[in-house]
Amino acid sequence: MTGHALLAHVVDQPGILFGVTRVLADHSGNITYVDFHAGEASADIYLEVTLADGTLGRVLDDLRQVPGVQGVQEQPPFSKIYGKRIIVIGGGAQVGLVAMGAISEADRHNIRGERISIDTIPLVGEHELAAAVRATARLPRVRMLVLAGSLMGGEITTAVEEVQKLGLRVISLNMAGSVPDAADLVVTDPVQAGVMAVMAVADTAKFDLMRQLKRRY
Amino acid sequence: MTGHALLAHVVDQPGILFGVTRVLADHSGNITYVDFHAGEASADIYLEVTLADGTLGRVLDDLRQVPGVQGVQEQPPFSKIYGKRIIVIGGGAQVGLVAMGAISEADRHNIRGERISIDTIPLVGEHELAAAVRATARLPRVRMLVLAGSLMGGEITTAVEEVQKLGLRVISLNMAGSVPDAADLVVTDPVQAGVMAVMAVADTAKFDLMRQLKRRY
Repeated sequence: MTGHALLAHVVDQPGILFGVTRVLADHSGNITYVDFHAGEASADIYLEVTLADGTLGRVLDDLRQVPGVQGVQEQPPFSKIYGKRIIVIGGGAQVGLVAMGAISEADRHNIRGERISIDTIPLVGEHELAAAVRATARLPRVRMLVLAGSLMGGEITTAVEEVQKLGLRVISLNMAGSVPDAADLVVTDPVQAGVMAVMAVADTAKFDLMRQLKRRY
Repeated sequence: MTGHALLAHVVDQPGILFGVTRVLADHSGNITYVDFHAGEASADIYLEVTLADGTLGRVLDDLRQVPGVQGVQEQPPFSKIYGKRIIVIGGGAQVGLVAMGAISEADRHNIRGERISIDTIPLVGEHELAAAVRATARLPRVRMLVLAGSLMGGEITTAVEEVQKLGLRVISLNMAGSVPDAADLVVTDPVQAGVMAVMAVADTAKFDLMRQLKRRY
């Protein structure tokens, strides 16, 4: 079995994903990642799929026969390009500084072969922040969530506990509210919080978050 | 026709996407977005789909009958949570400053109802950067690419021209190499480049990139 990343350029019509996934099911291909977002008249379906050795050629031929498929080609997988994701959510001032620390530290690891990207959104409001925290668990390749603000609690804390149960680790700035109590690690300096987030997910770093659980810096 | 965002919790087995997309095809649902990333034994399939009014209940019932589907629920769509994405790629020092500017500016627009997120990756190497630029065109909800570095050209410039043909706008820092010549807008100050990138995609801003095309600041 070998992993392949495929990009199908398709006409955006009902049933197109059904047609494409049927070909992969017929060949006993195991889809590990799909990304599809419809544009205007045409769209791309990006797939990562595990196939039995020697079957790729036939799979590509069959995909090209699906009505609405205009072309299919192999691609480098996202995991090799954008890699592990750290999501930073909160107030603009703090999110910016956490991002600065994380981007600088990711640079040092990416140079040594890692692939870590830092994704951010500045947001206001308990409900909006809680929804964004919950959504991180549904985003691909997310390894760490950093909450960067001055006051977070209530529904946001509930959302933090939910994503932790799904296996996501959460770093919080030292701030008012109950989020720091729920977080796996609390850091006062936003730049250091960003650096530690990257160190915790980098295979090229020696930082073990599990040995730091519930500490405050 | 009404848009819905659905999250299906499934057993990760071959054919599971085929089963789920068949139900939507049977109900003439038009899938506009799919995100699926297999985890360990179980996984989530996130779908945005347009359905005929009044059919949601039956679609949910049928989805729950698909072998391997453990549960299905409605969710707030990603487009309402993480919104438009600006991708910043390049050297850590410059990416960090572009992100600072963009995050601060996004904060001001998100407070007024926009949803703009800033996603970054620090990278080294012509081939790696070109691959990351090309991949932006395959990522969902991307509205702007900012190239932040000191020297970019060659294969990176070719990749910039390719994503521009796919409709993506590109801002470049003023730097050595041929990337600034290919970019839609060139900005010297990285913080301002980040701010302008957000202004160009925000519906709450008055900045029109088309009136600034090929200018240098």
